[in-house]
Amino acid sequence: MIDLCTLGTGGALPLPDRGLASLYIRMNGHGLLVDCGENTQTAIRKIGWGFHGIDGLLITHYHADHCGGLPGFLLSMAKAGRTEPFPIWGPAGLKRVVNGLRVVAPQLPYPVELHEFGSEGVTFRAIGLKIQAFKLEHSVTCFGYRFELERPGAFLPERARALNIPLACWKVLQRGEAVTLEDGRNFSPADVLTESRRGISFLYATDTRPVKSIVAMGQGTDLMILEGMYGDDEKMPQALKNRHMLFRESAALARQAETKALVLTHFSNCIDDPEVYLDNARAIFPNTRAAQDLMTITLGYEA
Amino acid sequence: MIDLCTLGTGGALPLPDRGLASLYIRMNGHGLLVDCGENTQTAIRKIGWGFHGIDGLLITHYHADHCGGLPGFLLSMAKAGRTEPFPIWGPAGLKRVVNGLRVVAPQLPYPVELHEFGSEGVTFRAIGLKIQAFKLEHSVTCFGYRFELERPGAFLPERARALNIPLACWKVLQRGEAVTLEDGRNFSPADVLTESRRGISFLYATDTRPVKSIVAMGQGTDLMILEGMYGDDEKMPQALKNRHMLFRESAALARQAETKALVLTHFSNCIDDPEVYLDNARAIFPNTRAAQDLMTITLGYEA
Repeated sequence: MIDLCTLGTGGALPLPDRGLASLYIRMNGHGLLVDCGENTQTAIRKIGWGFHGIDGLLITHYHADHCGGLPGFLLSMAKAGRTEPFPIWGPAGLKRVVNGLRVVAPQLPYPVELHEFGSEGVTFRAIGLKIQAFKLEHSVTCFGYRFELERPGAFLPERARALNIPLACWKVLQRGEAVTLEDGRNFSPADVLTESRRGISFLYATDTRPVKSIVAMGQGTDLMILEGMYGDDEKMPQALKNRHMLFRESAALARQAETKALVLTHFSNCIDDPEVYLDNARAIFPNTRAAQDLMTITLGYEA
Repeated sequence: MIDLCTLGTGGALPLPDRGLASLYIRMNGHGLLVDCGENTQTAIRKIGWGFHGIDGLLITHYHADHCGGLPGFLLSMAKAGRTEPFPIWGPAGLKRVVNGLRVVAPQLPYPVELHEFGSEGVTFRAIGLKIQAFKLEHSVTCFGYRFELERPGAFLPERARALNIPLACWKVLQRGEAVTLEDGRNFSPADVLTESRRGISFLYATDTRPVKSIVAMGQGTDLMILEGMYGDDEKMPQALKNRHMLFRESAALARQAETKALVLTHFSNCIDDPEVYLDNARAIFPNTRAAQDLMTITLGYEA
């Protein structure tokens, strides 16, 4: 199971009760953040998931609403006793931006590892998830992230018995490793597992116009978290000018991607209550919700 | 009258309902901020005093809890339509720090004017207040600020009449300017005003050990706002190590300075409720209060 928490759901500017962009992903006691807008360290205290389990940060782009909370967050991690290296991934400019912001947090009891990737994006693994960064189309270079928890095939005990594999080796094969027995016989996981099953996948893409990469990466996911910068269709001129999306444009991407659910976040401060405009999205993709600060979502395997 | 609002009262780290250091000073529709910790832009939205009237920012030192909110604050000022230059005062390092933080807010529709002062501090005027920066003793260079609204003498109409000064000139003299009449006679404000009267003065000093400069600058003020990093006397080792003060140390400074009132702020996140330790300060200086986020204080002239 994967728990998500939309720590902050504001875009550009906060509201009194709406912090700036950050998503907390938690799985098996490990965690990742996507973006770190101002208020992130406070929101993490509010949700109570702690700083200890956060194993890395992914940044989408370098506007202040997505990384202005970095110095305070890094200091909170220090206060929580971190000594292990802390990795941060982000597009070109990562070193310049993190080093700039760290002018007020120069000394930390742990090293910060910067993984800057190029315009082609990057695929890597962290906390057991396969992560793909893919390019969006905003006023500055910006990336979305797709996350996947792969699920191995089901174990077939009848087949293991038929092959006379000792019980002690079942778990090894089950977790995807090959075994060699004392009698010289070799077995691979494929000998005792079904085909790999559908895992869990979700996508996070904010600060963009609608682009094909979002549909391609969102194909068949369990959840797409997309920006809901403007709810009112009349805001199209602003959406075009500022390279953002209307609720209905995000909903159209979700429908094309045939995802299971859509959550809108990153609301302009001109939107007091996103629910007011939600029908604009639901008319196109019915299973749409508006995020709130500290809203949690749990994604599990299909039955 | 001067209105003060303790926008954020946390020191080092925030709590779920306690933001980081910032004080909003408002007088006659103009305003100044002292420090700009994370959450400042949100707190300004909450108090509703607006961004329009903020004419400058004074920074005490460059720890993240005192200036981490700067990029977001500058962007909020931009969104509020500011085009006039915005001045920031601070000790040596100001340019390096502001330019570092502005890596995520590089483009603003107004110029930012940086007034960096040296180890001797600085005296200047802004929004009608005389402001003195004075050195504190922290783990890094840190300054306190004393604010004074001077009050001219009272106008003596009987004296103006006796001198046969035309009524049209009374207001000019009253506001402190000399006049020359058509018949060649000259008058100065002293001709028609009493000695200058007691104005309004207050002081803000956080992140320091107790030093004499605080007592000297606080002498006879209406209010001293001092740090209350640690409430419990048993925290003395931490206070010495981290160059902070106990509640009782701040209270002793207030007593020595013979100020009228003391407000404690900048609470360590180990203090859930400052009220618990308030008697430690009140035993030494009875008129002590603990600040809360968004608490307002109004200072007026003596009757």
